[in-house]
Amino acid sequence: MLYRTHNCGELCKKDIGKKVVLSGWIQKIRNLGSLIFIDIRDYFGIIQLIFSKNLIQNHFNLGKEFLIKVNGKVVKKKSKNYNISTGEIEILVSKLEILNPSISPPFIIEDKTDGDEESRMKYRYLDIRRNPIKNNLILRHKISIEIRNFLSKNGFIEIETPLLINHTPEGARSFVVPSRIHSGKFYSLPQSPQLFKQLLMIGGIDKYFQIVKCFRDEDSRSDRQIEFTQIDCEMSFVEVNEILIFFEYFIKYIFKKIKNIQLEPFTCITYSDAMTKYGTETPDLRFVIKILDINNFIPKNEFEYFQKKKFIIVINVLKCSHYTYDQIYSIIKSIKKSKIEDKEIFWVKFFPDKTFIYSKKKLFTRENLVKIIKNINSNPGDLLFIFFSKKIQTKIKINKLRIDISNCLNVLKNYQIFKPLWIIDLPLLEWNEKFQRYRSFHHPFTSPKKEDIHLLEKFPGDIRSKSYDLIINGVEIGGGSIRIHDKKIQNLIFKHLGLSIKEIKSEFGFLIKALEYGAPPHGGIAFGLDRLLSVLEGKGNIKDFIAFPKNNSGKDIMVNSPSFLKEKKLKELNI
Amino acid sequence: MLYRTHNCGELCKKDIGKKVVLSGWIQKIRNLGSLIFIDIRDYFGIIQLIFSKNLIQNHFNLGKEFLIKVNGKVVKKKSKNYNISTGEIEILVSKLEILNPSISPPFIIEDKTDGDEESRMKYRYLDIRRNPIKNNLILRHKISIEIRNFLSKNGFIEIETPLLINHTPEGARSFVVPSRIHSGKFYSLPQSPQLFKQLLMIGGIDKYFQIVKCFRDEDSRSDRQIEFTQIDCEMSFVEVNEILIFFEYFIKYIFKKIKNIQLEPFTCITYSDAMTKYGTETPDLRFVIKILDINNFIPKNEFEYFQKKKFIIVINVLKCSHYTYDQIYSIIKSIKKSKIEDKEIFWVKFFPDKTFIYSKKKLFTRENLVKIIKNINSNPGDLLFIFFSKKIQTKIKINKLRIDISNCLNVLKNYQIFKPLWIIDLPLLEWNEKFQRYRSFHHPFTSPKKEDIHLLEKFPGDIRSKSYDLIINGVEIGGGSIRIHDKKIQNLIFKHLGLSIKEIKSEFGFLIKALEYGAPPHGGIAFGLDRLLSVLEGKGNIKDFIAFPKNNSGKDIMVNSPSFLKEKKLKELNI
Repeated sequence: MLYRTHNCGELCKKDIGKKVVLSGWIQKIRNLGSLIFIDIRDYFGIIQLIFSKNLIQNHFNLGKEFLIKVNGKVVKKKSKNYNISTGEIEILVSKLEILNPSISPPFIIEDKTDGDEESRMKYRYLDIRRNPIKNNLILRHKISIEIRNFLSKNGFIEIETPLLINHTPEGARSFVVPSRIHSGKFYSLPQSPQLFKQLLMIGGIDKYFQIVKCFRDEDSRSDRQIEFTQIDCEMSFVEVNEILIFFEYFIKYIFKKIKNIQLEPFTCITYSDAMTKYGTETPDLRFVIKILDINNFIPKNEFEYFQKKKFIIVINVLKCSHYTYDQIYSIIKSIKKSKIEDKEIFWVKFFPDKTFIYSKKKLFTRENLVKIIKNINSNPGDLLFIFFSKKIQTKIKINKLRIDISNCLNVLKNYQIFKPLWIIDLPLLEWNEKFQRYRSFHHPFTSPKKEDIHLLEKFPGDIRSKSYDLIINGVEIGGGSIRIHDKKIQNLIFKHLGLSIKEIKSEFGFLIKALEYGAPPHGGIAFGLDRLLSVLEGKGNIKDFIAFPKNNSGKDIMVNSPSFLKEKKLKELNI
Repeated sequence: MLYRTHNCGELCKKDIGKKVVLSGWIQKIRNLGSLIFIDIRDYFGIIQLIFSKNLIQNHFNLGKEFLIKVNGKVVKKKSKNYNISTGEIEILVSKLEILNPSISPPFIIEDKTDGDEESRMKYRYLDIRRNPIKNNLILRHKISIEIRNFLSKNGFIEIETPLLINHTPEGARSFVVPSRIHSGKFYSLPQSPQLFKQLLMIGGIDKYFQIVKCFRDEDSRSDRQIEFTQIDCEMSFVEVNEILIFFEYFIKYIFKKIKNIQLEPFTCITYSDAMTKYGTETPDLRFVIKILDINNFIPKNEFEYFQKKKFIIVINVLKCSHYTYDQIYSIIKSIKKSKIEDKEIFWVKFFPDKTFIYSKKKLFTRENLVKIIKNINSNPGDLLFIFFSKKIQTKIKINKLRIDISNCLNVLKNYQIFKPLWIIDLPLLEWNEKFQRYRSFHHPFTSPKKEDIHLLEKFPGDIRSKSYDLIINGVEIGGGSIRIHDKKIQNLIFKHLGLSIKEIKSEFGFLIKALEYGAPPHGGIAFGLDRLLSVLEGKGNIKDFIAFPKNNSGKDIMVNSPSFLKEKKLKELNI
């Protein structure tokens, strides 16, 4: 059976007069009495059909999403629509066939839909018929092909690593897979191909990459999926600098190719600087609102009110002293939502003419103010918010405040601005309150900086690692490190993470063994593909870039998974 | 730290005089007293270094697989080796550094190794350093990139389907994944993305593909892996013919691009013809040895000896009547290994001059023989083996005999000959002895041929489906079908497979639901990437084309998976 001679998007003016066969889904029906206009849609586009009343009368039940096939002739359209490729023509139908009828769809299948998230997930196949979702999937395909070809041309080879792997208790929770043949034993699904890509480097593969599914058994979070896709890369014989240079080139290439945007050279700051200046490890550089921790360099004895405060922090909104009281109070109001108390904040408008006005006049003299402004190197024209508190907890809210302020000021509305940032020298270890011991900041295979190794015994929290994260517009889209290739150092790190010799052997014995055969220096990086896409498109919801996402509690409500198994299956697996 | 200015494969005559830094693994050491020659190897190649005795004496412990870094100068080599790219030069070393020592490797790391399979699996990272395995991985990368670009250019988009899916009891055994958050419930790992790709078609995606991991919980078989990679494709608005044409073009493209081989047009025969002519659904067309079932058209009453036999089959080896007695008896000897008894076989040499000689003279007259030869349309020059038996079981060994014979005749030795074959019209259902009911031959979503649907009630085993397999050189490398897009037919098939209305709803409810919204006609195919590679290279062992394969019982003996979990983890999962 011939379903079509053309698709619904390819016919245009030059095809006028042609006889065609088309198949597509009914998008719209307009009944003008003697003539009926029907728009049909397929993957490629939308086209208008004209039916005489006679032709259609046996099919009076036609409705939206019916799949129909028509024979007809391309004719010139009277009222042209230049917004779509087929807008200058229409099809005069001579024969109609219903290929498959449709019941009434649960939501509107157009660019704007009335479907709520639950309904769109349940009928995902209908949601995919909508341009916004379909185009996201096409974009995802396009970016994946570009990435593969780019890396391949640059000497990387894609190697598939196994998905049924061994379970290691380090890191986040893994999903496990019971073995039927080896009763009582389990495989594990990888959180990343970390150790396998390291083994590939040890195996002499020079540059590896893989676009690969990874799995994390995490509790509900709207910006994460339990299965997600990683662009995973590893290189041999490199140090941090070579990785940063190459992958800056890589990200620039993607942005140029996909968005036609030429990115500026990436900013690069240390983790410690990021925390001081922005109060976060994922600063958004799009808006010039700096955070200054003036706790240590304000002469507290000169400010009675500051004496008992644990910290003092300034958020400096550059060139915004022209903001009105109303605007400032709406900012203060929004800040209060973060449970910052009124008494913990005051503001200063430092005008271009070097005069200033400020709130909480009772607490500070003008002289005080001049000192503060000097201390923080504020410039005329700045708008300052100053926070102080007895409670150290307030401090961790500061980054959120910075973003709240920027939202109030509408600084973020332009989604076409991208400000990538490398954060380097992240800590090797971090103190874990729950386990009362140090744990890896990234993972246990991250190389410490050579000059910091001596801190291992006394100040393990101060050791910096050869690691890096890539942040774009406040979102971490990738991260990696130089790995340990020295068996002794790897054993030392395992020991400091609290692993016994027996545990090291049983869980990482193969790695330690592999390091004995001339393992090369190597390092790599992994990017979250779902995140990268959502940042590229300036949209927050990664679900819109995944064909069949799970909901926030890890359910696929379309196919109903997870679900109960039959007793027989459980028995077979001995669970 | 600078590890290298060049890799070990790129330097040549034109670089003579250059100062270089190289890093690589020691492949060979030759100590000539005052001078020491060391070959180092990396991903790109191998190069010879010359050390003075003085330079090396602090490193007297150097051995194979040590990773070293050298500074040196490119000089002309006296005894040139034109087999390798760097064979006309060598490096006069001025500085040596050991980057990482190596203990003695468990097997020889050269093209030919003394490592047995177990050892090569356990130290897979060392096996990958060997060219044969490394080159297979590079080939796999290359073919994957070619496939992706080809399909992409032909309008297919790659869409990732989920790996944590719902469990359905149909088909082979699936692996399951317990959910921690939804206690007692399980995800399942896909055996193929079958239903998701169908949902994509229903979602209006015109052409989909995916190179994707699939999982099957099968018992040990050396030619299968529990996780394997599929090239999965699906198209809308097509019938069988369009799929065969496009994917013949696809396979031809791959062979041309990867092997520079222009394949002949593919042969296409029905399943029923394949069984009659070759006694198998995966015939190897490289050798012209036909099987003829003459049971029905030999006049048994004229051959006393045949009267009580259940079947008579002829294997006709074309143009081989010149084979000597010795050769024929070595064939007969090999045939006996298949437990065919001596009394169940005789042979005929039908010479070019139309005379013939034959074994078992007591049983047949020359007149008898002339009749047989006439009946099977044998030509002068043929060598015939005729099998007859009371036991029907012997019949199923015939295909193996055909292959045994061809092996004896060395017909298969040329691995550069490829004979692709489409098998079409496979049965929709097959009788399952164990379950005493019909089951799907492919899967329950395969469309029956319209003209056969009326057989459903009385002769379900006779229904042909709109399906096809691609066989190359006797190996099934792909298969697929047109799917059912009509809700009524899908329900009917489910019913005939013994599913109750309740079961249909709970297991395939989402599919039936999706078919209600104007599902398009669609069909597709899936190729086994591992198999395709092993056929392309003419090698049987698919493990050689997988970076980290499991052994025949599904174990990864390198990382030791599957393995036991800690009690705490099991508790968390409620299993």
